Amino acid sequence: MIDRDELAAWLRLVATPGIGRGAARRLLAEFGSPEGVLEASTAARRPLVGDAAAALAKEPPGHAALLAATLAWLDGRPAGESGGRDVLVLGDPRYPASLLDTADPPTLLYVEGRIELLGAAAIAIVGSRNPTAQGLENARAFASHLSRAGLVVVSGLALGIDGAAHEGALEGQAAGATGGTIAVVGTGLDLVYPARHRALAHRIASAGLLVSEFPIGTASRPENFPIRNRIIAGLARGTLVVEAAMRSGSLITARLALEAGREVFAIPGSIHSPQARGCNALLKQGAKLVDSATDILEEFSLARPTPAARSGAPEPAGAGLADPLLEALGFDPMGLDALVARTGMSAADLSARLLDLELAGRVARLPGQLFQRVERG
Amino acid sequence: MIDRDELAAWLRLVATPGIGRGAARRLLAEFGSPEGVLEASTAARRPLVGDAAAALAKEPPGHAALLAATLAWLDGRPAGESGGRDVLVLGDPRYPASLLDTADPPTLLYVEGRIELLGAAAIAIVGSRNPTAQGLENARAFASHLSRAGLVVVSGLALGIDGAAHEGALEGQAAGATGGTIAVVGTGLDLVYPARHRALAHRIASAGLLVSEFPIGTASRPENFPIRNRIIAGLARGTLVVEAAMRSGSLITARLALEAGREVFAIPGSIHSPQARGCNALLKQGAKLVDSATDILEEFSLARPTPAARSGAPEPAGAGLADPLLEALGFDPMGLDALVARTGMSAADLSARLLDLELAGRVARLPGQLFQRVERG
Repeated sequence: MIDRDELAAWLRLVATPGIGRGAARRLLAEFGSPEGVLEASTAARRPLVGDAAAALAKEPPGHAALLAATLAWLDGRPAGESGGRDVLVLGDPRYPASLLDTADPPTLLYVEGRIELLGAAAIAIVGSRNPTAQGLENARAFASHLSRAGLVVVSGLALGIDGAAHEGALEGQAAGATGGTIAVVGTGLDLVYPARHRALAHRIASAGLLVSEFPIGTASRPENFPIRNRIIAGLARGTLVVEAAMRSGSLITARLALEAGREVFAIPGSIHSPQARGCNALLKQGAKLVDSATDILEEFSLARPTPAARSGAPEPAGAGLADPLLEALGFDPMGLDALVARTGMSAADLSARLLDLELAGRVARLPGQLFQRVERG
Repeated sequence: MIDRDELAAWLRLVATPGIGRGAARRLLAEFGSPEGVLEASTAARRPLVGDAAAALAKEPPGHAALLAATLAWLDGRPAGESGGRDVLVLGDPRYPASLLDTADPPTLLYVEGRIELLGAAAIAIVGSRNPTAQGLENARAFASHLSRAGLVVVSGLALGIDGAAHEGALEGQAAGATGGTIAVVGTGLDLVYPARHRALAHRIASAGLLVSEFPIGTASRPENFPIRNRIIAGLARGTLVVEAAMRSGSLITARLALEAGREVFAIPGSIHSPQARGCNALLKQGAKLVDSATDILEEFSLARPTPAARSGAPEPAGAGLADPLLEALGFDPMGLDALVARTGMSAADLSARLLDLELAGRVARLPGQLFQRVERG
């Protein structure tokens, strides 16, 4: 676990006004350690960081309180063999090599849980906070199979696709001995955002790993999420976008993955589904189309020729027993009027049957009185 | 219109046992015309076609009957300025240049209708004989917009996607002055297969063009359909596959298009839809993903910046008229209290408006009384 004095020096370095990540790296490269940076003269630091050199001569505002809060957080679940809380610094041998191999690695990484997951081969699975029911199911199924196959699933703990990816990875991990999940969050690790994912975050802190580069006490701020996304992309060999609208954070993560020289995968979807637009746009730009988890394992040369490793596009259970309503519904969102016209059923009968199918998990009800068929992988 | 004696010589050439399309082309290159081929000595022909040289010395079986049937077919609707029936031979100036630019152009092309369509820029639209309702609608919409933009839509008159493509192209043509459709069939032009498309074939014979390389009287044979597919691909600058199962004829057409150096486009779909598997597989192999007709027009440098040319993924009605509530909502989940503060509306008014927007599919209601904007377009 990180030493108290060392932590104090790192916190001073990263919290000093005018010292960004790039400046911190230049200083560390020159002076070897944050203690070395702080002991150096302002004149020696100035060529590297300009006027910010002087600011390093004094404690940044709130330093003592931040140090105390960070130590209290660390004490809440001490690091140990079975996991716990810790702060990884640039140069720590446990700092993930995958992140070092990016243009802008975080200076500090706050972690809680199974730190060894940082060394495993990983896939990022991200997507919309407002997905379709099928999108959620796809995220869960792909994550479960990839985790079972030994990959660590990295995501952002957001509502929607992110949450389903973490859940699926925990399922896959429970079934086997390998795999797991890493949640990279955009707040301090003492806070959980969104609140709805508090229980999930606790499970990940035990069975997986929580990661943040933001200081203890950092609340949720929209501008921090794209910054967080580069860690998601940077920790993984590739990023899978499950569903995404245009102009969404998931597309930022995909761009960051490309910039870090990693693969981008996307699940295609109907050209009429808003939640598929972002994925289809990525595919136009050269992302790899995947229709099963095996596609990703093959790309990483991890494929095992077992049917169990296939997901995403299974033959439907009881495919021979076609439900005429499901046949009429197809895989695109459809309104009630269109279904009345297509099936010849009355609106009342149709509504009753749709409710049955919805309760059975075969049909999802979308905003705008649209219905869509759901296949389970 | 083709001369009777010339036609007789061409029919003898192509019907002679042992003389395939390649042999016919070698003979024509050497002797200049089918009459020249027939007048040459067997010894002169032998170096080009081996033992089949002798067979050319006598009339092939059924020659007189085939000539009579072909002439009767031609007489049924004589060629003229407003269209009609004709036989185009290799070397005819009206023979389509796009087909000459393929590895294996047909020796004869039987045509009925607007022969000038052979000279227009064309797109092939093909797909499953057993499509989804959305697939049919996509085929119709893309064909209509591409025809309206001036492209000729080539397809195979099959049930399903092919028929919808022809119908859409005829619609688009009716709306404008350009565009049109060509149906390439796998039977003699005196027969219509499938019978269900008899009325459509008649409309195409008038408003578009029917094409076949098979002699009059040739019935539907499964082995002729892949042969026919190379003409569909060869007539067009590119082939769009709308929906296709794995191992389907549409994928053969796509392969033939690639072999002829043409573009292959595919519409993506749900990984759970059997009818999308073929398209998704093509996209994995490098086909260009399209989600609107504009994508194809842009590829051909034919795009016109008119909203009418967009299909498949229409902009939502009134997308330009920003709703102040939607603006206030942004794309992150937001509670009612925050919205009250941000909009100055009463909670009651806000609830009513949110319900409207939810029913219109513009807003999603999340657990915890949070609302989120749904991005369409």
